[in-house]
Amino acid sequence: MNDTDVIVAGGGIGGLACALALTIAGQRVRVLERSAEFAEVGAGLQMAPNATRILRQWGLLGKVTDAGVMPRRLVFRDAPDGSILTSAPLDERFITRYQAPYVVIHRSDLLTILFEACQDAGVELIPSCTVTDVAIHQDHVTVATSRGDQRAAAAIGADGLRSTLRRRFSDDEPVCSGYTAYRGAFPVAELDLQLESSQLEEVVVYIGPGRHLVQYPLRRGEIFNTVAVFASPGFARGEQDWGNPEELEQAFRGSCDAVTRGLKSLWRDRWWPMFDRVPIDRWVDRRLALTGDAAHPMLQYLAQGACQAIEDAHCLGTVVEKARGNWPDALENYNQARSGPTARVQRAARLWGDIWHVDGVSRLMRNELFRAREPADFSRADWLYGA
Amino acid sequence: MNDTDVIVAGGGIGGLACALALTIAGQRVRVLERSAEFAEVGAGLQMAPNATRILRQWGLLGKVTDAGVMPRRLVFRDAPDGSILTSAPLDERFITRYQAPYVVIHRSDLLTILFEACQDAGVELIPSCTVTDVAIHQDHVTVATSRGDQRAAAAIGADGLRSTLRRRFSDDEPVCSGYTAYRGAFPVAELDLQLESSQLEEVVVYIGPGRHLVQYPLRRGEIFNTVAVFASPGFARGEQDWGNPEELEQAFRGSCDAVTRGLKSLWRDRWWPMFDRVPIDRWVDRRLALTGDAAHPMLQYLAQGACQAIEDAHCLGTVVEKARGNWPDALENYNQARSGPTARVQRAARLWGDIWHVDGVSRLMRNELFRAREPADFSRADWLYGA
Repeated sequence: MNDTDVIVAGGGIGGLACALALTIAGQRVRVLERSAEFAEVGAGLQMAPNATRILRQWGLLGKVTDAGVMPRRLVFRDAPDGSILTSAPLDERFITRYQAPYVVIHRSDLLTILFEACQDAGVELIPSCTVTDVAIHQDHVTVATSRGDQRAAAAIGADGLRSTLRRRFSDDEPVCSGYTAYRGAFPVAELDLQLESSQLEEVVVYIGPGRHLVQYPLRRGEIFNTVAVFASPGFARGEQDWGNPEELEQAFRGSCDAVTRGLKSLWRDRWWPMFDRVPIDRWVDRRLALTGDAAHPMLQYLAQGACQAIEDAHCLGTVVEKARGNWPDALENYNQARSGPTARVQRAARLWGDIWHVDGVSRLMRNELFRAREPADFSRADWLYGA
Repeated sequence: MNDTDVIVAGGGIGGLACALALTIAGQRVRVLERSAEFAEVGAGLQMAPNATRILRQWGLLGKVTDAGVMPRRLVFRDAPDGSILTSAPLDERFITRYQAPYVVIHRSDLLTILFEACQDAGVELIPSCTVTDVAIHQDHVTVATSRGDQRAAAAIGADGLRSTLRRRFSDDEPVCSGYTAYRGAFPVAELDLQLESSQLEEVVVYIGPGRHLVQYPLRRGEIFNTVAVFASPGFARGEQDWGNPEELEQAFRGSCDAVTRGLKSLWRDRWWPMFDRVPIDRWVDRRLALTGDAAHPMLQYLAQGACQAIEDAHCLGTVVEKARGNWPDALENYNQARSGPTARVQRAARLWGDIWHVDGVSRLMRNELFRAREPADFSRADWLYGA
């Protein structure tokens, strides 16, 4: 292959977002994806204003809102008793405050939008090509791949939770939370949801001891998305086969009717154990940088995995444009700008999950704190969603 | 011995309070105490207005406040960091609201005041006499004791946590909380407290994960009282020898300096494992009634053990006076009046202790809830202290 300016290892949401941002910044970009197709597994994904602001800059917000849903409200309910604990409007008040909307969208729809934007921008999109290592030289990198060495000015590791390129920076391993997620996305017409109509315009999170369930609409409201997450007793006992559907049913016993019904809207043939990693300070070495889950995988409680990857991409575009070809300076600035904020989100996501899952008297206190909150009090979200 | 109207089994604070209340209600009362002396072990004791109001009715409040201290404030602090979490004034605002003061007093001082009041009122006070059983007849009871059978119109079991007479009502056993208490009461001059002077007029409770420490002055401020309580890891492991001073030191590691210094003000040669029981509905059978810890032993987190025993005594006096010699009716009314409220206090005491001892994210939420509370907001205390 010809030389290019940047090689991005990984064609998921984070990799494509980087490719697009770097192309907009004037770079020639090649994305190497190890799968035969550019595709996403999973179901729904939440996009907070810190990400949608950037999508708008890239000219993609219209497509994203067309393909997704702008929910009117985020609601937390108690999983055992079903009562509302707190809620936050996601309507004009929210959009005015953060200068961008909250959007929920199918992962594959977002990937398609980014893929097509990359195509339109002239990104080289190469499937079935696995990156195995990167050699960093004075003025270029050599990217070793399953299809031979490739040369570029810089390389971006967007190779996800189990990143190969991260090994250059840390010998750490993904940390298993012991929680596993079941997901499901089905046409609304096929489901027996028995929801109030308002819930078809909301993101609802039922939180309870050792478990939670999230529901929201997708694709203009045609599809209903459900995620159920629970602490696996099998994992706690050190068993290999953990998180199976029997454990799912057991974990959600003692939940309100709406949650019990929600369990019927899940795929049962696969599930996703939940991992993150302990934050590390550095994920940049001269002409190589990590991004997204490769750099800072996080638990999904703040729904920020994709959002932070998009922030990474936007930051990369900015520093590269400013550095005018000085890749080591650009990537150093990227590391400086992003390692603190993403570490904070990683830590806050763990804490937020702990808050959702408390039991006993701690649940009573949590519920009281939540109930005392004013719906329009966004003071806890500003650090994350603010401009 | 001659016949009498009432035999009270047990001459602790609860038994003497019953004897006094029943004497005031016109009964001839005999108290049988198994020890050779009427005496209390332990150190300080807190008297909330629900008890001091009754002491005033009995003409004892002046003696109690003379012997004790009326603290100006109740303060909760975080044990790890020492910061104030919330406080409640115990000054005129409090006294006006509840029509009686909050008093802390040495257990032995309160016992002496009650003992002398019983003597003055003509109560027969018999030491070294253990009650082993009560036979209930149509118009009297026969109390079997270590000094032979005695006859009375009714019997009151005030024989404490490990009550013999409770076996007539339930085969339950005391429930060990796995927490143990260390106590100490020393002359202020002997201690290196390094306290702000205001703390010599306060009840301070340092709460932390699996542990807490309580400090307050006694005897007009001459004596300083300290209680340290912690969850024993030895108990959790099922060991016989648990709660020893080594565990005490270990449990309080990571506490602020004031708490660490406070540990020096404890007796080390004995400690008190903490028990309660699950509430039971009935502790009255025709001419026999339980009272105080025999009826409803509770964890000490609400400092209500002695207060509830005094409420029991007051209630007994009232129902007996009204019933004009019909003991079964009187005691039935006593059971009706007291079983609900005391069960509520038993349950609330457990919950309150759980709140004190939470860890991790639950501690952060607890601290936030406490900090949001207005000092003069007594809405949570009215059910307990209210008239």
